[in-house]
Parts: sequence; structure tokens; C-alpha cells
Amino acid sequence: MQIAMIQDKIVPIEKLEPIYLDRGIFFGDGVYEVVRSYNGKIFALEEHLQRFAQNLSAIEIIGVDIDQIRSRVLKAFDDAGISNAKIYFHITRGSAPRNHVWDTNLEPNFFLTITELPDDNKIKTEGIAVSTYTDLRWKKCDIKSLNLLPNVLARQNAAQKGCAEAILVDEAGLITEGAASAFFTVLGQRLQTAPLTCNILPSITRKFAIEASKNIGLEIVEKSLTPQQAQAADELFIAVTTMDILPVVEFDSKPIKDGKPGKYTKLLIQEFCSFTL
Amino acid sequence: MQIAMIQDKIVPIEKLEPIYLDRGIFFGDGVYEVVRSYNGKIFALEEHLQRFAQNLSAIEIIGVDIDQIRSRVLKAFDDAGISNAKIYFHITRGSAPRNHVWDTNLEPNFFLTITELPDDNKIKTEGIAVSTYTDLRWKKCDIKSLNLLPNVLARQNAAQKGCAEAILVDEAGLITEGAASAFFTVLGQRLQTAPLTCNILPSITRKFAIEASKNIGLEIVEKSLTPQQAQAADELFIAVTTMDILPVVEFDSKPIKDGKPGKYTKLLIQEFCSFTL
Repeated sequence: MQIAMIQDKIVPIEKLEPIYLDRGIFFGDGVYEVVRSYNGKIFALEEHLQRFAQNLSAIEIIGVDIDQIRSRVLKAFDDAGISNAKIYFHITRGSAPRNHVWDTNLEPNFFLTITELPDDNKIKTEGIAVSTYTDLRWKKCDIKSLNLLPNVLARQNAAQKGCAEAILVDEAGLITEGAASAFFTVLGQRLQTAPLTCNILPSITRKFAIEASKNIGLEIVEKSLTPQQAQAADELFIAVTTMDILPVVEFDSKPIKDGKPGKYTKLLIQEFCSFTL
Repeated sequence: MQIAMIQDKIVPIEKLEPIYLDRGIFFGDGVYEVVRSYNGKIFALEEHLQRFAQNLSAIEIIGVDIDQIRSRVLKAFDDAGISNAKIYFHITRGSAPRNHVWDTNLEPNFFLTITELPDDNKIKTEGIAVSTYTDLRWKKCDIKSLNLLPNVLARQNAAQKGCAEAILVDEAGLITEGAASAFFTVLGQRLQTAPLTCNILPSITRKFAIEASKNIGLEIVEKSLTPQQAQAADELFIAVTTMDILPVVEFDSKPIKDGKPGKYTKLLIQEFCSFTL
């Protein structure tokens, strides 16, 4: 007899619910997206769906109908009736007895949650503190996969230090990005952020943040920075789907300038609003 | 209303089974072990439990009672009644709405499967072919975590080439280990394998393979090799829990010597048997 055991309970394998054999659990063999709505309207859904399709392709999960994913997202969003919603969804390669090598006939598993976003007015007005952590991630950080243990460890470390985000630093001593955000500095009229390589996620909010920066007249430099350069910047902020642009006022316990959100950051928050109307 | 969606079905979050919110799926936030039995006796269970405890500690999953895990493994093994069994088990940090930062009150989720091992006589007699693949893994490969997407991609690539294992090669052009095994070369009377660093798993079968090698009089060198050095070796083999020592007779399409399992490898297979009686 082949058996499974869940906590203390023995279950014959043929009676096991497929979710227990999800390759998402065994291997993190899946990709995900997070989108949000502003006042009842989902923002940049097509960009997110396009990246999702690219990520599915990157890990060779084939046969997923993106139109069907769009319909599911829209149906769930409609059903939830939440005006400012966080929509998370993932697809894993499917459920099967554990084996690294996959069967190409597997049916992918789709899972989605919709939750209400908290009011972010206070945090946007006051800004956040961040702390650095070693970038322990794999070599394909451009894929938004379910292999997120290094991000979890980084963010837990930040939380223990009273920080809202961990800024990841690679072996060369350069900042890649936040554990769940893109990271930006402003020095003079220059916006700087790490270039798009396999070391960072092609963040959609990053793209809009750069567009907003151009709109307010900042020069854009895509070049990696050290933590020391970040600490010496005029302004810092992170970009993340759920909160768009969030001022960073403290970096590794050191206040940035006067410890208040910078003027360009505040302008960018306003400019970003115009995209989401 | 906060909702979830599984495939096309909408489920209120309060009615969702906890397994759907397992941090194992969201983040790969867990660790695992594979042990096997030989003729009704589990091999090296204590070594595996000790490593499991170390891995839980490494990712800060606390409060797991290893005695309870041992009892579960023994109970399940007893119930299954399989003489040559593969026993897989993992613990994840628990189930909760998705948030990188964890709540320390979470109850870890335990899951185990027991399956029958196929007869490995033919594969051990004939040996296997392996192929190289870029080591895309994270920087803490000494932790046996559920973040296994790079291993999955490597092994799928190997399977597509008709190979039984992928041998991972790092950025420096050095072999780290197999995607699910330790890797060894024999040249003259010298056994060589990568040293224990954060780049490889402290494999228990590796430890026994080294012990067996000492017993048959081989000199042990723990130093990384290039694929070219591996191809030029007298003998190659991998060590993996489910099959102990497995001869490698082809490396990146090139036969090793006469393309047959080497004499020391065959001696090691015999020597390993003496451990498992």
C-alpha cells in the first residue's frame, strides 16, 4: 500500500486530495502575480497578464489560456466587490506524485485570493524604514516564481528590525532590489535604479515609476548602487504594486536627509495617481 | 467579502481549506527529507532527522518535536508495510493568508508519503548518462528547502536529453553537485567530490559514500572539478538516498572510459550494502 500522512493522520494515496500533491508545495513549481484595483478599477491588468504569460513560458508551463485567466480575475474581482483590492493569483504545474521531471499532460492549478488593501495614507505621508539583507536568491530573479524563501527570510529580518522592507545586496555589494519591491534613489534631479537583468524582477510598478519620473523632469539612470550611495542620496523610495510609490525615510537605521519623504517622491506619488484614475 | 478562487470556483476565504494557504505553496517556506528502507529497515533515519532539525532551525521554523516526527515516520512505515520504501516528508511553516513576514504562532504542517522503490538492479549494473546544466540555485544550497524550481528545470533538461541526472555547473565553471544527488569522480586511486560549503547539500549518502571509499582504500579529495575533468576521469558515480551509489557511464554524451561502470564504483556499491544490512 502506498500511503500519505497529514500531521498524524494516515491517508491512502488514492484518497488524497490533489492539492496535497501540488508541485507548488513540493518544488515551488509555479509563477504568480499581484495586481491591485484603485476605486473599483484594476490597474495595469494587461501588463501583469503579459508578464504572467512570459513567466509561465520561462518555466515551460504550457497550454495556459491567458484569456481564461483574465476572465477568472475579472469574475472574482466582480464577485468580491472590493473597491481597493489586492488580487493575488498563481499557477502551478499541477498535482502529481513527487518527481522533479514533469509529465507534460499535467493540468496546471490556478489559485487566486482577493483581499482588501488597508488605507495607506499614513504610511505614504510618513514613509518607511528599510534595512539591507544579503540577496540569497537564485540566478533567475527576472522570473516571478514561487521560490520565495530567500525573500521571506529577508523580510522577516527587516520586520525584526522594525523595518517595512528588506533591500537586497548582492555579492558584489550592489543593491539589486527590495525583497518585494523595486528600489530607487534620487540625487539632485537624477533618478537611479538597478538595470533590468536576470538579477531583478521586471517590475510593472518600476516601469510606471520611471514613466512618472520622466513626466516630472527627472533624468533616469539605470545603474546599480551601493548601500552607502543609497544612504547619501537626497531621496529614496520603493515601488510595489499594492502601494505604488512609498517614500523611504530611513536606511539601515540612518535617516535620509531630514528623515521625511522627499519633494520628488511626493511629486511622483501624485503623478502616479494620474495613471490610476 | 474576501474571496479565493480555485480553478473556476469561487470560495469564501473562511471556507477555504488551510492547505490552500500553506506557506509551502506561496513561498516554498519549508524543508524536507527523503529516507529509504532496505528489506524492511529504514537506513540512517537518525542522520536524516538530525539534518531535518538543522534545516528547520536554519529557516527558523521552531517548536517542531523531532521525537514526534520520528514516531510519525515509524508509524507510517509500519502501516505501509513496504520492504523497500521511499519515505518523503516535509514541514512547512504553516497555513496563513499570504504575507512574507510570518506569525510566530503558526502551527507547522507535516506531510509524508511512502512509495515502493523500483528494482534498481538493471540501472546499477548498466549505469546512467548525465548531462550538465547551469546551477541556477540560491546561495544556501546547504539547506534542503522546498525552493526546488532550479532543480526541476535542470532535471527536466536532462530527461529531455535522455539523461537520468543533471550535473550542476556554477558561474566559475565548477561542478557543485547533481540536481538531486552528490557527484563523484575516481581517477587512479583518488576519489574527488566538491567540498561541503553553502553551494552543496550535506548529503548523507555522500557521507556514507566517502566512508565506503575509505574502507576500500581510496584517497579522498574534497575539491571542485570542471566538466572537462569529470569527462577525463576513470570512473564517475552519483550518490543519492533512494539508490545509494549509481555508476555514471556517460557525461555530456561522452562515454567514460569504456562506457561501463568502473571497478571501484562496483566495489563501493558492494561496500555500501554492508552499511544497509
